[in-house]
Amino acid sequence: MAKEVTKRADNYSQWYDDLVVKADLAERSAVRGCMVIKPYGYAIWEKMHDTLDKMFKDTGHVNAYFPLFIPKSFLSREAEHVEGFAKECAVVTHHRLMTNPDGPGVVVDPSARLEEELVVRPTSETIIWNTYKNWITSWRDLPILCNQWANVVRWEMRTRLFLRTAEFLWQEGHTAHATREEAEAEAMKMINVYADFARNTLALPVVVGHKSPNERFAGALDTLCIEALMQDGKALQAGTSHFLGQNFAKAFDVQYTSKEGKQEYVWATSWGVSTRLMGALVMAHGDDNGLVLPPRLAPIQVVMVPIYKSEEERNAILDKMDELKRELEAHGHTVKIDDRDTLRPGFKFAEWELKGVPVRIAIGPRDLQNGEVELARRDTLEKCQVPQEGLGKRIEDLLEEIQANIYAKALKFRDESIIKVDTWEDFKEKIENGGFLLCHWDGTTETEERIKEETKATIRCIPIDSAVCEEEGKCIYSGRPSHRRVLFARSY
Amino acid sequence: MAKEVTKRADNYSQWYDDLVVKADLAERSAVRGCMVIKPYGYAIWEKMHDTLDKMFKDTGHVNAYFPLFIPKSFLSREAEHVEGFAKECAVVTHHRLMTNPDGPGVVVDPSARLEEELVVRPTSETIIWNTYKNWITSWRDLPILCNQWANVVRWEMRTRLFLRTAEFLWQEGHTAHATREEAEAEAMKMINVYADFARNTLALPVVVGHKSPNERFAGALDTLCIEALMQDGKALQAGTSHFLGQNFAKAFDVQYTSKEGKQEYVWATSWGVSTRLMGALVMAHGDDNGLVLPPRLAPIQVVMVPIYKSEEERNAILDKMDELKRELEAHGHTVKIDDRDTLRPGFKFAEWELKGVPVRIAIGPRDLQNGEVELARRDTLEKCQVPQEGLGKRIEDLLEEIQANIYAKALKFRDESIIKVDTWEDFKEKIENGGFLLCHWDGTTETEERIKEETKATIRCIPIDSAVCEEEGKCIYSGRPSHRRVLFARSY
Repeated sequence: MAKEVTKRADNYSQWYDDLVVKADLAERSAVRGCMVIKPYGYAIWEKMHDTLDKMFKDTGHVNAYFPLFIPKSFLSREAEHVEGFAKECAVVTHHRLMTNPDGPGVVVDPSARLEEELVVRPTSETIIWNTYKNWITSWRDLPILCNQWANVVRWEMRTRLFLRTAEFLWQEGHTAHATREEAEAEAMKMINVYADFARNTLALPVVVGHKSPNERFAGALDTLCIEALMQDGKALQAGTSHFLGQNFAKAFDVQYTSKEGKQEYVWATSWGVSTRLMGALVMAHGDDNGLVLPPRLAPIQVVMVPIYKSEEERNAILDKMDELKRELEAHGHTVKIDDRDTLRPGFKFAEWELKGVPVRIAIGPRDLQNGEVELARRDTLEKCQVPQEGLGKRIEDLLEEIQANIYAKALKFRDESIIKVDTWEDFKEKIENGGFLLCHWDGTTETEERIKEETKATIRCIPIDSAVCEEEGKCIYSGRPSHRRVLFARSY
Repeated sequence: MAKEVTKRADNYSQWYDDLVVKADLAERSAVRGCMVIKPYGYAIWEKMHDTLDKMFKDTGHVNAYFPLFIPKSFLSREAEHVEGFAKECAVVTHHRLMTNPDGPGVVVDPSARLEEELVVRPTSETIIWNTYKNWITSWRDLPILCNQWANVVRWEMRTRLFLRTAEFLWQEGHTAHATREEAEAEAMKMINVYADFARNTLALPVVVGHKSPNERFAGALDTLCIEALMQDGKALQAGTSHFLGQNFAKAFDVQYTSKEGKQEYVWATSWGVSTRLMGALVMAHGDDNGLVLPPRLAPIQVVMVPIYKSEEERNAILDKMDELKRELEAHGHTVKIDDRDTLRPGFKFAEWELKGVPVRIAIGPRDLQNGEVELARRDTLEKCQVPQEGLGKRIEDLLEEIQANIYAKALKFRDESIIKVDTWEDFKEKIENGGFLLCHWDGTTETEERIKEETKATIRCIPIDSAVCEEEGKCIYSGRPSHRRVLFARSY
């Protein structure tokens, strides 16, 4: 095999980096903390984009685009928001470079200093609510249901490809409503859109819940989230949806005239997912041979590798592959024939396994003679001989089966990793093995922070599924009374 | 009519601004020179994106994503490039804000100064070629055919919505090739993709040509362009494709080992179109009533307006409209029923005319009785009664006809505006009326700049259509010998 991948058991973190880089998803750039998303990785992101975009539009949302820059003063308008985002942001102070008078290259032109510094958006609530002020005067202007696909910058000190980068790609929905109830329903609707997307497209079984007050988005009254479990037992926040109350409407003075003729502040939500989902995809499903892509996100769903000795065999096999490719494409599948003649089949097999292609078809001279192909599935690594006839339908069923199987496997792992814990001793022991610990908590930020200090575990969410967690009990840490269990885990 | 639009004859420039803002395409933001692209405008841009993206993929290109930031020193690597872009760029100097110790709000944290300043990308050749260095070692790695959809920033002093903004959206293709011939062919292929897109989708008849050396992209050996003519007789550069030679490969030391085992520098192209095309669309086709959108770009292709007095009539008409809408949607058209009950039909007619919807269908009680609808086309403003039966097919043909008619009208205008001029006196007179002047030029930058100083006209391009311009003659300005005519115009 050409590219060695570290084994998960040896070094999970290195295994992740290996997969991202060696499977050509992304790489570090010359700019600190910023990544280059390579064509293969970007093709997966495009599928995420297209699927989500359709889901947003089907639920009545439209896209728009707001400025990259935010005037520094806007950030301070909402008190909690500035606390949350001012500490790590890229600040534009000048608008010109000039030839270096003292040497080679260019330097900042000191005369081109901006009157007010601009921040590269870390999130767009402030610039968007400043805009909504002009769009909203009457109840007739509501709701506004906008989404934006954009890049954002947060100057993180420690970065990891996809999981935490200084610049990342995301979508951010920003909605404006006449009533509290409508805004709350919107925030819930969108976290459910994310959960459906995670389950059906990413094959990622997520837990939907509320964040504890301490973990809320800066400026939100409530933050809903989807939490996924990675194979090392750490949790990953995969998407959030915030009920912002009237905080931004008040900060930017956005009021509307109600049907009754009264002036009222507008209610808001915002919600987003990012290229972080790429990291979740890698870590949730990959194995020691490389990526395992759910068919619905795979840029190549079926790869065909010819096995031959002579030029004559090669030509005959490639002709047959062209024919089969057309049949599979007619069924809506994406197919690649790997006809490179400088590489051995074994090398190609390993490369496409590394890249997580769901199905591999190999054809050799004997297969050609017998009217068969060798079929290999990436998820189970099983191989079998099947007839060429009816291949289109067979592959269609197989891709569905693989999608379902990847989800089922991840779901089983997650369900086995949700453990009820009732004592502090047990908590400290179990948390070392990873997984979600379902525990009673007294509801105070103080207890939450103590638990974090002692174990590095945080409350990932308070699940909305009341059957799972609504029961009386005592806080594992303080012993004080608690009315429901919450999910603790260490996290990315 | 609710929103007055300035007439073209009264003030063309104000007419343009009125259309952009009042038809809800875009508006100015709180950030100097940056625009907000509103949902209706963004929906048109999405159609441009989707159509172009497919054309790029059909010609073998893939998408990727490169960092927003460029280290300052990268810009200086290519001597001409830095001259072209350093003067107007947003410079990030710090990565943190802090609470203002002397008052309210936040200030730049002086301790968070970056070691090397970062420039917000004005274009990405430098960061991309720095990346390509790692991707290319052998002839087997070539060609690389990447495109990126991104935002870029150029700190323009005078801005206009879509035409010239500090931040804009665009795509930039960056390709790497083993030979000069292949790179030159790529640059030509892509300008032809743009020309096809302009003609078939934007309904914009463009002239394809080479820029004069003086007007080339900073760092290019050749710049190809498509030039469109606006209704006021000014030209607009709608897209460019650059043959970059080995300039960037040399600046970033990108070499490959050829089949013969020799080290060679890589050949490059880059090509792009931007949200500027939105401006071209408005100015090329709009009229005094508002936008005129080619059906292939219209977010709403057919709008239906019910005309009624009683609630009973309203319900009956809306039921019929639902039925017709389903029929039209089955033909692949985008349909909106304007059922707002607080507005008069006349107001709605004007609003959808302003927004350029290609076809309007009105149904009143008598139409319902007669099994007819009133059909109005936006391009000609003609109205007629047609039967409801077979409406799907009729609309399909009509949308095709409108698309063709908008193009034909623009083509006629452009062809009438290309004028051969052979004397300097004539040039100075004719240029006042706008249009493309097809003239002999002695090939020197000196002459080109004199002409610009005296008339504000520049060489828009040296057309590649040799039948149009290859002939012997004398430069209109210097009288020196010339072998071909070139196109002069005033431009945006």
